Amino acid sequence: MTEALVSIEWKNDALILLDQTKLPNEIIYDRYTTIQSVWDAIVTMKVRGAPAIGVAAAYGMYLGIQDVTGSVSELKDTLQKNGEYLATSRPTAVNLFWAIDRMVNCAASLDDDSIEMMKESLLTEAKRIHQEDEDINRQIGEHLLTLLEDGNGILTHCNAGALATSKYGTATSPFYLAKEKGWDLKVYADETRPRLQGSTLTALELHRAGIDVTVITDSMAAMVMSQGKIQAAIVGCDRVAANGDTANKIGTLGVAILAKHYKVPFYIAAPTPTIDMQTANGDTIPIEERNIEEIINSLGKWTAPKDVQAYNPAFDVTPADLITAIVTEKGIVHAPFEENLKKLLN
Amino acid sequence: MTEALVSIEWKNDALILLDQTKLPNEIIYDRYTTIQSVWDAIVTMKVRGAPAIGVAAAYGMYLGIQDVTGSVSELKDTLQKNGEYLATSRPTAVNLFWAIDRMVNCAASLDDDSIEMMKESLLTEAKRIHQEDEDINRQIGEHLLTLLEDGNGILTHCNAGALATSKYGTATSPFYLAKEKGWDLKVYADETRPRLQGSTLTALELHRAGIDVTVITDSMAAMVMSQGKIQAAIVGCDRVAANGDTANKIGTLGVAILAKHYKVPFYIAAPTPTIDMQTANGDTIPIEERNIEEIINSLGKWTAPKDVQAYNPAFDVTPADLITAIVTEKGIVHAPFEENLKKLLN
Repeated sequence: MTEALVSIEWKNDALILLDQTKLPNEIIYDRYTTIQSVWDAIVTMKVRGAPAIGVAAAYGMYLGIQDVTGSVSELKDTLQKNGEYLATSRPTAVNLFWAIDRMVNCAASLDDDSIEMMKESLLTEAKRIHQEDEDINRQIGEHLLTLLEDGNGILTHCNAGALATSKYGTATSPFYLAKEKGWDLKVYADETRPRLQGSTLTALELHRAGIDVTVITDSMAAMVMSQGKIQAAIVGCDRVAANGDTANKIGTLGVAILAKHYKVPFYIAAPTPTIDMQTANGDTIPIEERNIEEIINSLGKWTAPKDVQAYNPAFDVTPADLITAIVTEKGIVHAPFEENLKKLLN
Repeated sequence: MTEALVSIEWKNDALILLDQTKLPNEIIYDRYTTIQSVWDAIVTMKVRGAPAIGVAAAYGMYLGIQDVTGSVSELKDTLQKNGEYLATSRPTAVNLFWAIDRMVNCAASLDDDSIEMMKESLLTEAKRIHQEDEDINRQIGEHLLTLLEDGNGILTHCNAGALATSKYGTATSPFYLAKEKGWDLKVYADETRPRLQGSTLTALELHRAGIDVTVITDSMAAMVMSQGKIQAAIVGCDRVAANGDTANKIGTLGVAILAKHYKVPFYIAAPTPTIDMQTANGDTIPIEERNIEEIINSLGKWTAPKDVQAYNPAFDVTPADLITAIVTEKGIVHAPFEENLKKLLN
């Protein structure tokens, strides 16, 4: 057994990132010491997953003020400018803006410190953001684990895994915790077309951690459920609306419908920052459409006529009535979701 | 607009097969003059689709006795032996056995002929099997068309298309006939992982024939149904059991469950030879498992760790209660299927 992969680390005054564009074939860690290089890593998707991007951005903000030698107010100005710059790296990533804001706000609250003290405080803040993400994921995992039993078969879709976060992942967190407890879960990973995050990332990270994982195509989920192999489906989310409707990687909706058909509980792993009470329901969540070559020119080969039509929505929305529970770091939420999400967040 | 593709043809004493392993990028026709080469074409899936395999096998049986010069009974013995040999090329293909049997039975019924006459009769029988397949498909299409309307959106899975048959296909037949009538159907083709027959074959043949087709990943079927874009799902089948349970390409079961959820009618296009009244229900249909590299080494690239587990069933079984109608060349069959299939076949 090899060791579990770590996507992001702070070590010897540098940010260490696993290059996710080389997975699953090469495990390469790169060392980052400038904000420009962190910007580049986000743009080129060497670091990916909303939480991991947020953590990388926090360290990037710290790296960007390391060489400032002037006054405290110069440092704050630089931090502000750097934040605007770093925010351009992935303009749809909510966690990115959130992490940048936290770093800027941290500096704002430190008026009386020396410039050296301030730098140290900013590094501490970045480390805190990092640690908080790990804690949240562990708590989500602990809650999910109360819904599972030793020996269960679990279906997951896409990668809401350790590779997308500081540690444990969200949907994958109970798999790591079950392993710590000595449980034998049997995880089925949908490969997750078109970008194959299920096979290239989820299968990779679970396999490296010694967790029993079996890759299937998305089209096999119905069959494994029909065979009684699945006792729960657990997926991550990009955004949860106030009524519980959940946007997540394309294919999640299908898994939810199959789970309902086979009476398999369907769980959303949702850190509370992904719950958006300002969005009433799934109808108003914008769905990004990506380049159709992801479908018809898979892995660099044409798998359909070059000039054929294709449709490539990146996400779908699972209506709340297909969701058994939304599992957050603060607890497990059941229907009626609108009411219970409100209670949870207050 | 380019011309519709023809998968199988008899021309100048040879079987001409479109090499389906080269699609969609190369359109290459190969010439076959021996039973061994036909066996090889079936094994390597250069010819695929139950009806096309049956037609190819019939011509293969004829090619296998061309050089026999002995007595009529020697010819029959050779034909019998060749049949057993050819049957090993794809052990789950009912049409294959059926076509082989027809050729053997044809010879059996020709006791008084000379060996040359017998060879000629066997070629005629192969051509008859070929023409009957085209006729059957056209009739299936005409029946299916009565269930559709101009402007409908239709989801199909895998390739039960012209490329899998002599002409028209089974599930795709109404699309060709609608085109002849001047209707505008909007076809959505599931790409059909792991082997991508939906994008490489169905999208290709419909696109070449000028039919409006949009490729989606299998995981997007739920979303397009949720958007109200689909008025019917039509798929082919490998085997229909006496109670209506239907084995077809992996992923069909999922489509059927989604269709039920969205109240979209789900039709099986089934030439009567694929209805197997000897098989009581789907539980006893053997499911072929294929090499897992089809999933984790897609298109020649590793998309998961090399030593990870994967599961690759080639087919799934859709229970009869998810099927709106089974559409054959002899008519449309509704539930109760056991009773109505019996009536149809008598």
